[in-house]
Amino acid sequence: MSKISPLSGFPELLPAQRAVEREVIASLSRTFELHGFANIETRVVEPIDRLAKGGEVDKEIYVLQRIAAEPDAKADLGLHFDLTVPFARYVLEHAGHLEFPFRRFQVQPAWRGERPQEGRYRQFTQADVDIVGRDDLPFHHDVEVMSVMVDALARLPIPRVSFQFNNRKLIQGFYRGLGIDDVTDAIRVIDKLDKLPADEVARMLVERVGTTPEQAERCLELATIRVPDSSFVERVRALGVTDELLDQGLEELAAVVEGCRAVAGDRVAVEANLRIARGLDYYTGTVVEIFMDGYERLKSVGGGGRYDALASDGRTTYPGVGVSFGVSRTLVPLIADGVLAGSRPVPSAVLVALNTEEDRASSTGVAAALRSRDIPCEVAPSPAKFGKQIRFAERRGIPYVWFVQADGTSQVKDIRTGDQVEADPSTWTPPEADLRPTVISTVEIEEIQ
Amino acid sequence: MSKISPLSGFPELLPAQRAVEREVIASLSRTFELHGFANIETRVVEPIDRLAKGGEVDKEIYVLQRIAAEPDAKADLGLHFDLTVPFARYVLEHAGHLEFPFRRFQVQPAWRGERPQEGRYRQFTQADVDIVGRDDLPFHHDVEVMSVMVDALARLPIPRVSFQFNNRKLIQGFYRGLGIDDVTDAIRVIDKLDKLPADEVARMLVERVGTTPEQAERCLELATIRVPDSSFVERVRALGVTDELLDQGLEELAAVVEGCRAVAGDRVAVEANLRIARGLDYYTGTVVEIFMDGYERLKSVGGGGRYDALASDGRTTYPGVGVSFGVSRTLVPLIADGVLAGSRPVPSAVLVALNTEEDRASSTGVAAALRSRDIPCEVAPSPAKFGKQIRFAERRGIPYVWFVQADGTSQVKDIRTGDQVEADPSTWTPPEADLRPTVISTVEIEEIQ
Repeated sequence: MSKISPLSGFPELLPAQRAVEREVIASLSRTFELHGFANIETRVVEPIDRLAKGGEVDKEIYVLQRIAAEPDAKADLGLHFDLTVPFARYVLEHAGHLEFPFRRFQVQPAWRGERPQEGRYRQFTQADVDIVGRDDLPFHHDVEVMSVMVDALARLPIPRVSFQFNNRKLIQGFYRGLGIDDVTDAIRVIDKLDKLPADEVARMLVERVGTTPEQAERCLELATIRVPDSSFVERVRALGVTDELLDQGLEELAAVVEGCRAVAGDRVAVEANLRIARGLDYYTGTVVEIFMDGYERLKSVGGGGRYDALASDGRTTYPGVGVSFGVSRTLVPLIADGVLAGSRPVPSAVLVALNTEEDRASSTGVAAALRSRDIPCEVAPSPAKFGKQIRFAERRGIPYVWFVQADGTSQVKDIRTGDQVEADPSTWTPPEADLRPTVISTVEIEEIQ
Repeated sequence: MSKISPLSGFPELLPAQRAVEREVIASLSRTFELHGFANIETRVVEPIDRLAKGGEVDKEIYVLQRIAAEPDAKADLGLHFDLTVPFARYVLEHAGHLEFPFRRFQVQPAWRGERPQEGRYRQFTQADVDIVGRDDLPFHHDVEVMSVMVDALARLPIPRVSFQFNNRKLIQGFYRGLGIDDVTDAIRVIDKLDKLPADEVARMLVERVGTTPEQAERCLELATIRVPDSSFVERVRALGVTDELLDQGLEELAAVVEGCRAVAGDRVAVEANLRIARGLDYYTGTVVEIFMDGYERLKSVGGGGRYDALASDGRTTYPGVGVSFGVSRTLVPLIADGVLAGSRPVPSAVLVALNTEEDRASSTGVAAALRSRDIPCEVAPSPAKFGKQIRFAERRGIPYVWFVQADGTSQVKDIRTGDQVEADPSTWTPPEADLRPTVISTVEIEEIQ
């Protein structure tokens, strides 16, 4: 077989790095479950006509075909490119067996055939939380689901993240109150503020959307409002636009920002940022994008919002609100940069040394005794000199080496300090911190719950 | 959108069913880690020339192509159909960063475009444990890896499974000692004993493989030996064949059977079954197939063995030994038959009731206090009549409903018994068994660790 090179866009983790990813996913899952969200997994394939909706992502879909298919056979399945499309389909398919409002979280890979770059991969894992209702879904669930993700990310040993909230009703109401006809088009232009200078955007509003220069200026003024609390309400009011939908949007955004601030602590920033729009057409109220300090180059590491028609079967409509966190997008760069690392590449806390190959049974017996008390361990592969067995443990970051003496008693050595003590396999226990691989983070965190 | 029908061969679980799968995977993972196996995940795609090796499975490979690819573009990636091929590639690709012997476990889906039937799906999850060495891998790892899977399955609340072991060296040595030239071909014919009567198989050995009738009879006699201990050694010896490789095979098989018996307990049967061959050519020593009582129709629910050349880059060879357990193949039928069920479809142990919408903050405060002590809970979606809120909890299997009184004190009701007591959200704790959804199994198990 030939030398193997990595496949661009399909990052793979080494065992110690994978330990970081597993712990992050376990932590997210624990938080989601504390808030009553049930885990589901969907199959990774969907019918292509359900995936391809004419959007930008369409051309990145991977289609699937059996290798033995006829050359002209039409491919009708593709890999999902997010977890929202399969979740919407799952809700429709299984609605008769679900209780609504249905809270679910889902942590799975998705696939996009896009050009790979830092934070953008062809296979990437996401963690999504959503609440979906049947026919209606009260607004307070917006506050709930966003608070859950704030709580979940606050517990991760990653750089500080910021949740930047806006509300589609607020934007639409404001534009409508200003007298702008094509609200969608105006949002699309304002979205370019990331890349273009403000006066350029103003000119586009006038020339493309047909606003007056005054209307354009108000739109820009709205988009520059960015505050860490509900003081945006007064600032918007000061712009002098009145509209019923605007009022509702202001009230909702204030409730989301204040609700999330209440659980954010120091590890998460919460802001109202009236420039955030999110391109996707299906959002109808709350929208959010999540950024990570020092990693602004990744763009958002998560996002979501309210969609009043997540799914519909023609008779029943299922409104939803949710938010997605890019696990791979966040962790792969943090691991590459050395911000996060696993403390060791193996679960073993103890290497049970081997005197001779004939003594394997007694070493295996010690290992069994330790395992019966939930202490992960392994037996040395060969009866090498003890120095070599200790180096074997060292290379794997295994903190303890266990020696079975000729008289049947045992000693255990902490190979970091060199301390060696008598020990009984039926009672000896390492400190909790040594039991399993842990995540080492260079992020200064006083206390992550 | 149109009515949605399930996609044949892609089973999906409802939330309470998924809770069963998660707990089974968590239990397997805990056991693997206790034995020092590190978890990895591989990307789901491999180059097609690495997947397609001319075997039976080739035509079931799903190939992948971007939807926007040129019509004549050659597809060069496919979805993996097992976890062995990607693991072998992972070892070669990352060898410089791994410590050998490398113990890994992997729990991921795989895909095969085969005709769906009970236990056979187009997307299915497997749990694999393997140990791989560089250049060599001592035999005792065969005993180790098989014992680990015995230990792992013994802890699952599933019907009793049986590990049926054989050894390729034993078969090959026996056939060689008998004077049969084409050992591989003879194995292939003996493998048909599942489907054909013994005299038919004997006739095929004579006619196709060119054995004498006496040789054929010895082969059949060997294949009928099936015992729960190492007594097979004497029975094989009694057949009067001598061969060096046979001796080695007998010794290895005896060690595997006795080693696994030592950890099997009552929940797992361990047998030497000299009919087991496993078709795959790459096995070179130990082979195993796993069957489940009452589910013989699924054929094996797992299997594996020793392969002296799991991977090779031309200079270095990586021998391995491992075993795979079919998570979907086992659980989907057990769940469908009602043998396994989740105790509830939501993680919440408590529903915090709501007096009025204005009181939401105090209910949310109670929920936060419970969560700070790791008690999963949710707040009622609306201030319906209490009877309705209790039924809301009942439909989800949530055992407790929490009422915040007008004076700020609280009461909690166990809705199964109707008992209602005063409670403080900063101290009240439900019994451990109510904290999380559990797996309900109709399998009689005295005590599963």
